[in-house]
Amino acid sequence: MTIADRWLLPDGMDEVLPPQASRMEELRRGLLDLYYRWGYEQVMPPPVEFLDSLLTGTGTDLDLQTFKLTDQLTGRMMGASADVTPQVARMDAHSLRRQGPVRLCYCTNVLRAKADQHQGGRSPVQVGVELFGHAGLEADSEIIHLALASLEAAGAQEIHLALGHIGIYRALVEAAELSAAQESALFAALALKSPGQLALEVEASVSDPGLRAMFVALGELHGDASVLSLARERFASAPASVMTALDQLDALYREVSARFDVSLYVDLAELRGYQYHTAMMFAAYVPGYGQALAKGGRYDDSGRAFGRARPATGFSMDLKQLASLAAASATPGGIWAPAEQDEALKHAVSRLREQGERVIQALPGQRTGPAEHACDRRLEFIDGRWQATALTQETSA
Amino acid sequence: MTIADRWLLPDGMDEVLPPQASRMEELRRGLLDLYYRWGYEQVMPPPVEFLDSLLTGTGTDLDLQTFKLTDQLTGRMMGASADVTPQVARMDAHSLRRQGPVRLCYCTNVLRAKADQHQGGRSPVQVGVELFGHAGLEADSEIIHLALASLEAAGAQEIHLALGHIGIYRALVEAAELSAAQESALFAALALKSPGQLALEVEASVSDPGLRAMFVALGELHGDASVLSLARERFASAPASVMTALDQLDALYREVSARFDVSLYVDLAELRGYQYHTAMMFAAYVPGYGQALAKGGRYDDSGRAFGRARPATGFSMDLKQLASLAAASATPGGIWAPAEQDEALKHAVSRLREQGERVIQALPGQRTGPAEHACDRRLEFIDGRWQATALTQETSA
Repeated sequence: MTIADRWLLPDGMDEVLPPQASRMEELRRGLLDLYYRWGYEQVMPPPVEFLDSLLTGTGTDLDLQTFKLTDQLTGRMMGASADVTPQVARMDAHSLRRQGPVRLCYCTNVLRAKADQHQGGRSPVQVGVELFGHAGLEADSEIIHLALASLEAAGAQEIHLALGHIGIYRALVEAAELSAAQESALFAALALKSPGQLALEVEASVSDPGLRAMFVALGELHGDASVLSLARERFASAPASVMTALDQLDALYREVSARFDVSLYVDLAELRGYQYHTAMMFAAYVPGYGQALAKGGRYDDSGRAFGRARPATGFSMDLKQLASLAAASATPGGIWAPAEQDEALKHAVSRLREQGERVIQALPGQRTGPAEHACDRRLEFIDGRWQATALTQETSA
Repeated sequence: MTIADRWLLPDGMDEVLPPQASRMEELRRGLLDLYYRWGYEQVMPPPVEFLDSLLTGTGTDLDLQTFKLTDQLTGRMMGASADVTPQVARMDAHSLRRQGPVRLCYCTNVLRAKADQHQGGRSPVQVGVELFGHAGLEADSEIIHLALASLEAAGAQEIHLALGHIGIYRALVEAAELSAAQESALFAALALKSPGQLALEVEASVSDPGLRAMFVALGELHGDASVLSLARERFASAPASVMTALDQLDALYREVSARFDVSLYVDLAELRGYQYHTAMMFAAYVPGYGQALAKGGRYDDSGRAFGRARPATGFSMDLKQLASLAAASATPGGIWAPAEQDEALKHAVSRLREQGERVIQALPGQRTGPAEHACDRRLEFIDGRWQATALTQETSA
């Protein structure tokens, strides 16, 4: 095996070098501080769980995305976390068991067995927030607000926000009494955004002409606020829950457009995700990035299997992707110290570091100098004491 | 399956709840900032790599600790990172390829297939630093200094530091021309700290009487600085590299005892670790914790298989374990805002958050109040504007 082969990394499993890793750390801190100021408490879900708990109530997408491991201690199958959201829901339902609304946030590595079409990497750093215990739109609005504030903090410009509501699709599926196979084929056609495929699947599976027209409409209803009025016409004879969903989208649309300078659009066929969502869904995009930078929505009752059905809404992002939106902060600067083993020098170096300065001490025989280590000053012994002096072009070269 | 069963976590794969997760975040930041001030640049190694690269030159201990995964994309075997140090060495040797000393630090999740006797969990958060490109004791001294400063930052008291040097054992093994099986049995006896077992193994494997005595001495030489003088006598006829190793330990012992208020001891049979170490090794303990809180040492040339042999020294710790040394900071305080949808209130809340305040807005119908959410003030509408007022015992109850 050659040296190059030995260091080939698996597709989508990347290393992060300086200065990109510091940029990610900076952003991580900024985001967790933002969530803290909104009252969100940090949690760290387990990186690996027994497969039974990990995949309960999360749908097949997540199953296929999950790396499976054998537990040497018990012989049971375990899975590496591929999505933190269901884990945090279980922490709320089972470990915390608090009364009233609970706000949680996290930032942690996850692993994906395969990259899906929306997300490049297989080793994202998932950062996000979840709000449990409140079913009202105030919670959804807070979550969307935080998602947009997060993107702005990361330096995103020209944000496009797509709003959808999986309740509309679900209500139509229920009314049409589709089998699991029929539903799955219809879902795939909608997800592919293929009107021809959708028409074929609807033709084959849905007998009621009114519902047929509504399924086809689902694939066409995307655009600005006018889509919502159009949807009210097209879905006039739909189950009542469809109108409730449209009311919710209407309210969120108005709320977001009043508060944020983003391009908003409605897409009633926006159904991506791991199939645990139950109502409002959203995805935020910026030009130049094919995949959504933030994805979220409502996923009520996912804690039921763990003893407690709770309203839940939240969003998440990939810190790696997010950190690529803006360059790292300007070079940090620092002070170059000579390699001498001098007590006064050691004290000067300690004192400067205690004051928050970055001080790099040369090692004996070192050939690289202050310039290679991003230092803009150097410690020199002047007038009987060690002092930091500015580096001129000549001395730093 | 019952609800309790569903939420059973695999042994050693823990979740971290509030406030412990914030405590870990606080410590993470403090440590990475400390390393930054010393000139260490942050990196993020890949969480999963092909097994060939992951385990090259690291010994069998790490192999047995590594979770194996099949890559669906290539069919090749991959492993989840169980120890970041060899990964960072490869980043230095292959990805960075810089001239001169390189200082790197990291803080990341790792996974272990089984808990070893020294370390409780199977999902540690490994935090540490590595210094490449300098073979001198100045680098080892810097690393020990940072390890002790890290423990102090975490609130450790009564630190005990064990110093050892695997070069002594290696030199004796080479001189005795032991087979791999004999060496492995001897290593095990020394690691078990069993004089009886050691004597038996030495008897069976080592023919030269001088070397026999030295192997037996290895198991006895632990204690204060006097151990080093004693070792010079016992190893008088040993290969020259043994004396060099003792000189190094002597210098480090004097350096550390002059600078730090720690209990120092020398242990020449301290051989734990993943077998990649080549010279000075150390481990730091505090009373009440059976396992070492920080472990490190020199591991020169581990990048050779990746094209570049470099001197290397470093240490690492488990952030989870470290965070348990001291309690979380006092309750953060915060401002409770009512659920009203009032524009002036929204502005007041935003302004306070921009000032760095923690503001929790109630959701309509919420039954829990400021006391449950660690708030010490509340926003009230007084004299025509929203103002934060202190909560009295009565109102917060």
